Amino acid sequence: MELLLKNVDLVITGSAVLEHQNVAISDGVVTSIARHGDTAAVKPDRTVDGRGKAALAGLKNAHTHAAMTLLRGYGDDMRLHPWLQERIWPAEAQLTPEDIYWGTRLAALEMIRSGTTFAADMYFQAPEVYRAFEDAGLRAAVGFALFDFGDPERREALQHEVDEQLAADAVHTADGPNATGNGAVRARPRVFPTIAPHSIYTCSGELLQWAAARAVEHDLVLHTHMSETEQEVQDCLDAHGVRPFQWLHELGVLEAAGDRMITAHAIWLDQEELDLVAKHGVTVAHNPASNMKLASGCFPWAEFDRREVSVMLAPDGVASNNNLDMFDEMKLAALLQKHHFGDPTRLPAEEILAIATGARSKLYRPYGVGGALTVGGPADVILVDLDHPQLVPVHNLRSNLVYAANGSVVDTVICDGTVLMEDRTVPGAEEVLREARRCAAALVDRASR
Amino acid sequence: MELLLKNVDLVITGSAVLEHQNVAISDGVVTSIARHGDTAAVKPDRTVDGRGKAALAGLKNAHTHAAMTLLRGYGDDMRLHPWLQERIWPAEAQLTPEDIYWGTRLAALEMIRSGTTFAADMYFQAPEVYRAFEDAGLRAAVGFALFDFGDPERREALQHEVDEQLAADAVHTADGPNATGNGAVRARPRVFPTIAPHSIYTCSGELLQWAAARAVEHDLVLHTHMSETEQEVQDCLDAHGVRPFQWLHELGVLEAAGDRMITAHAIWLDQEELDLVAKHGVTVAHNPASNMKLASGCFPWAEFDRREVSVMLAPDGVASNNNLDMFDEMKLAALLQKHHFGDPTRLPAEEILAIATGARSKLYRPYGVGGALTVGGPADVILVDLDHPQLVPVHNLRSNLVYAANGSVVDTVICDGTVLMEDRTVPGAEEVLREARRCAAALVDRASR
Repeated sequence: MELLLKNVDLVITGSAVLEHQNVAISDGVVTSIARHGDTAAVKPDRTVDGRGKAALAGLKNAHTHAAMTLLRGYGDDMRLHPWLQERIWPAEAQLTPEDIYWGTRLAALEMIRSGTTFAADMYFQAPEVYRAFEDAGLRAAVGFALFDFGDPERREALQHEVDEQLAADAVHTADGPNATGNGAVRARPRVFPTIAPHSIYTCSGELLQWAAARAVEHDLVLHTHMSETEQEVQDCLDAHGVRPFQWLHELGVLEAAGDRMITAHAIWLDQEELDLVAKHGVTVAHNPASNMKLASGCFPWAEFDRREVSVMLAPDGVASNNNLDMFDEMKLAALLQKHHFGDPTRLPAEEILAIATGARSKLYRPYGVGGALTVGGPADVILVDLDHPQLVPVHNLRSNLVYAANGSVVDTVICDGTVLMEDRTVPGAEEVLREARRCAAALVDRASR
Repeated sequence: MELLLKNVDLVITGSAVLEHQNVAISDGVVTSIARHGDTAAVKPDRTVDGRGKAALAGLKNAHTHAAMTLLRGYGDDMRLHPWLQERIWPAEAQLTPEDIYWGTRLAALEMIRSGTTFAADMYFQAPEVYRAFEDAGLRAAVGFALFDFGDPERREALQHEVDEQLAADAVHTADGPNATGNGAVRARPRVFPTIAPHSIYTCSGELLQWAAARAVEHDLVLHTHMSETEQEVQDCLDAHGVRPFQWLHELGVLEAAGDRMITAHAIWLDQEELDLVAKHGVTVAHNPASNMKLASGCFPWAEFDRREVSVMLAPDGVASNNNLDMFDEMKLAALLQKHHFGDPTRLPAEEILAIATGARSKLYRPYGVGGALTVGGPADVILVDLDHPQLVPVHNLRSNLVYAANGSVVDTVICDGTVLMEDRTVPGAEEVLREARRCAAALVDRASR
């Protein structure tokens, strides 16, 4: 499959913004970015008109709970514990596999419509999440959220379930969601598993150690929440006598799997913990909207930046955001740093845009997830509409994307070389909206009984 | 002119959300909000299909510098003084009347596309701003920004200019921008003047006193910036021995015109100043994006709220935002209060939505600007698309509008009973984009010479 993005007005590639380019794509890889005419030899199967548009890498959502779209607006403006205990947990206890599938499809639709081409999910009913992302055509890292609350029986049951999933290897068989349909399997599965212990306060040390070992054994990313609230740090000190990242260090998790680990939130770290993160190559995922909405605290971006820590950006779940628009997250991230530290020069537009495209992290590269738009990289590309009034005029395209845009500027989305949206139209969107509405209504009806 | 919004799925009116309503409009006034069938007798000149949509009051932008759209992205991530001195002021020195007109038209286009039906502007070349808002069909309060920097000659020249504008009374004559076209003048001008001394640090006490007197004499709103930065407070203490609102009090401005005054930013107030604001009925305009981007500080919403102060919301100018989307401002305002004060219950969705519609201020009511959508109120109404994925499902419509939406959910905009946008299409948008681009390019070319 050859695809040509023709006559694109502006192309953001690495630190450059090139004018009037053709972007050629072949079998899911960007094969050239060249001036008009230079790609005259390309005979594409499909051409997308790039006039009046700018191209850049798709945005990478590093931490989400996709199916929580069904709980959008179900509980807001509440403190964390009443919110979880009175609203979220009772509803989650009622989730069916069908809810998970359609909730994830709604999330995928929203992500496509706002220019996201990759999501790292952590939730329940992983096979349904797989199926939903595969059907939507998005790239995704799917983690089954593990909680044992220190209960050995529960832990063993979970371990058994994860091992069965890994053994079934749904991802790598011709029957699995990455089947090509003709008896073969994709070389680079578009949807792939992670090991996802929920957090240090819901998982025993044994479960965390086991999860790290399984991640290493199966060459997978280890995805967890860390240091989201001050309370979590205090509870860790009370329980283990050390702070959260020190606890991971004592457990040997950082040593075993730090460089394949991504920790969502990563707010409340002291200097020793920051150094541990840097030393062990841990990736951190910033969730500005969620952190502000739940009043969790402020991500110490400059501390990570000066240690050259791998950083990604994320919207978290819709229940604490309440959308999945990575453009919103970019603006919030930049504004939050400036406000919190009283310095308008913090986290400039160029940097947060690089972070949002995945260009400040190599964690997912072995799994086919790219960073900036480059020749030889994965064909995960978005086109934004330069005639959107909020993008006029263009003195600085990156600034416009970060500070002026929202997801509605995205016109076309290409993931793994496939066009998922053109002219803001996503095929099948109506069914997704209808089924998600039906599931959401039935879910809260069950939860409120 | 009779207009019927037919079969609207959901209507937000005051604190209620009504299902399946018809909204009837006659000569710029909402004449009924009723169940299907109840308006069978209405014979509208035009009908708008409300199925799959929700109706609410248009959003009210309480403080902006509209023509600064031409400087979108021209200077970001800079400290206030270098930003003003190196980027903004050199460019503003080059602004032509044509720039002001097309920059304001671009702002109006952006506001219409994101559901704003009223803007209070403060900038230069007021006649061009008038003409632009009138041509766009938006409701607007236009202030000519006054600076004398303590120079009596400059002050006299400004006073003369303002008096000439008021005497010419461009607003109230059949030749002016509020002419109906057949020799008459609108009873309630859609575009009307304010008196707009820029700030206490750019205006002498004499100019502030004169401005307050002129506002009273001509029954106009007095629009200024106040207490945006800590430095401004310190400078006021150094110059006058008192804090900014105390200085207005000493000048007699609060006593003369406090209840017709709106102060943008209003961040750094002590308890005595907060009491002064409440006592004199001053309205305050919160600008969350601008305040965060310039690291100015955090608006003390709860302090104003418990004193029942009149509060409005605003995006400020595009140069410090960088858009005019009031949906962005709602989310930012709510998140900023929660983050800054460490309390997720602060500034809930219902409250910030009321503020954004103007329902927490009566300042502009005498000038025809409404608050919530109500029968008998001005027909400034927006319809949002409930099929936008970010608004699905609807457990709580207000929460969805504040936390999940952006301006792109707006489908239809009605201002003063006239449809300015339907199905996201604004007539004449292409010309506005083309002319604004041309002016912006020439402006920065002149400024960089």
